[in-house]
Amino acid sequence: MSNLRELPIVETAAAGVVPCCAPLAREPLTAPDAERLAVMFKALGDPVRLRLFSMVASHEGGEACVCDIQDVGVSQPTVSHHLKKLRDAGLVTSERRGTWVFYKVVPEVMATLSGLLGQKV
Amino acid sequence: MSNLRELPIVETAAAGVVPCCAPLAREPLTAPDAERLAVMFKALGDPVRLRLFSMVASHEGGEACVCDIQDVGVSQPTVSHHLKKLRDAGLVTSERRGTWVFYKVVPEVMATLSGLLGQKV
Repeated sequence: MSNLRELPIVETAAAGVVPCCAPLAREPLTAPDAERLAVMFKALGDPVRLRLFSMVASHEGGEACVCDIQDVGVSQPTVSHHLKKLRDAGLVTSERRGTWVFYKVVPEVMATLSGLLGQKV
Repeated sequence: MSNLRELPIVETAAAGVVPCCAPLAREPLTAPDAERLAVMFKALGDPVRLRLFSMVASHEGGEACVCDIQDVGVSQPTVSHHLKKLRDAGLVTSERRGTWVFYKVVPEVMATLSGLLGQKV
């Protein structure tokens, strides 16, 4: 998967996280890889943030702005705060369009995390 | 996947977490599901704990005791502490055999998390 290092979408991730690594069931993580990946899992380790991430991921085109997100039981500034945390962890990218900032999932990163927890073959 | 509710291995998970949910890219999580799943992601959100989890997962039979784990740069009591946290989150189960407690990954839970982050189809 070394060619992923050249994908612009990965280079724009704020935390500079690059997809990596074989499934955990096949071989243990190195300390540096664990450091990078733990940042992502930590970002998903908050119930509100995880739910917001799922709302962005399942929204049309895998992207959404704060204006698309409702009924999560927290204020719009709190939603924005959580979305920025997801961006800082490299799970989503952001782009301003007029009044709103749109957040978009990084499919390669999701695939990496999914593969990491998947079967070893 | 509702038949997973009847698997003993799931019932023994300390946090009582039951695998669930469609891929995030397909539909958003409900608040209760996000609460349960965030506990697992949070447990993986520490670099040392994530590395230990990968060591257990990749060890023979997907299980290991503290005696099998070396060179992680933390003391054996700290390793034990982290393994208990993984157990409390429902990611591993534990079983005492003589002097040692053995920790074993819960394949259904890993598959759930992998599927959650996987493609929507």
